[in-house]
Amino acid sequence: MAKHHPELSLLFHALADTTRRSILARLAEGPARVTDLSEPTGLRLPTVMRHLSVLEEAGLIATSKDGRVRTCAIVPAALEPARTWLDEQRAVWESRLDRLEAFAIKAAKERAK
Amino acid sequence: MAKHHPELSLLFHALADTTRRSILARLAEGPARVTDLSEPTGLRLPTVMRHLSVLEEAGLIATSKDGRVRTCAIVPAALEPARTWLDEQRAVWESRLDRLEAFAIKAAKERAK
Repeated sequence: MAKHHPELSLLFHALADTTRRSILARLAEGPARVTDLSEPTGLRLPTVMRHLSVLEEAGLIATSKDGRVRTCAIVPAALEPARTWLDEQRAVWESRLDRLEAFAIKAAKERAK
Repeated sequence: MAKHHPELSLLFHALADTTRRSILARLAEGPARVTDLSEPTGLRLPTVMRHLSVLEEAGLIATSKDGRVRTCAIVPAALEPARTWLDEQRAVWESRLDRLEAFAIKAAKERAK
């Protein structure tokens, strides 16, 4: 069994919501104020703030406050553990397919003898 | 804002748990019986069954029953939408970095005139 990665759970949990993914997609284009992020969601500000908290806890965004204006920015490196995990699964799966293929080729050769 | 993808939410939700990721990592090596998957988790069978349901609802595993024995297999293609989404975010982010770099180079050249 693989090692436990609680931070990977936080990360995937943060990505498991359409509003949060929309916010990240917007922030990939550049930093934005909370009010600007809130507007296209059609959600109330406290709801958006909760989504931003989940993203911040997962390390996916950083926020800064200047007076009454809070600005959010994406932390792109934070997505890397998710990508790495998906790549690892694919590598295991593909090496298994390679082994199956090698076995099938060997079996076919033995039948041809 | 990006389009809504409820199936992507199901997928990331399924991945947001260490037990479920461990089960997927085990199944990447080949199909397994529910009892064999359950053993290394140290969890009770009903709990493991609930995790398997979440994985099956997200399309990440398929199960089949032969008499009293239920066998699970991974559906590797089901991970692709997650990978595609992560790749899209990186592409947007990198094109933004490229634009920033082009702007910095242009500004530096203008200063040098």
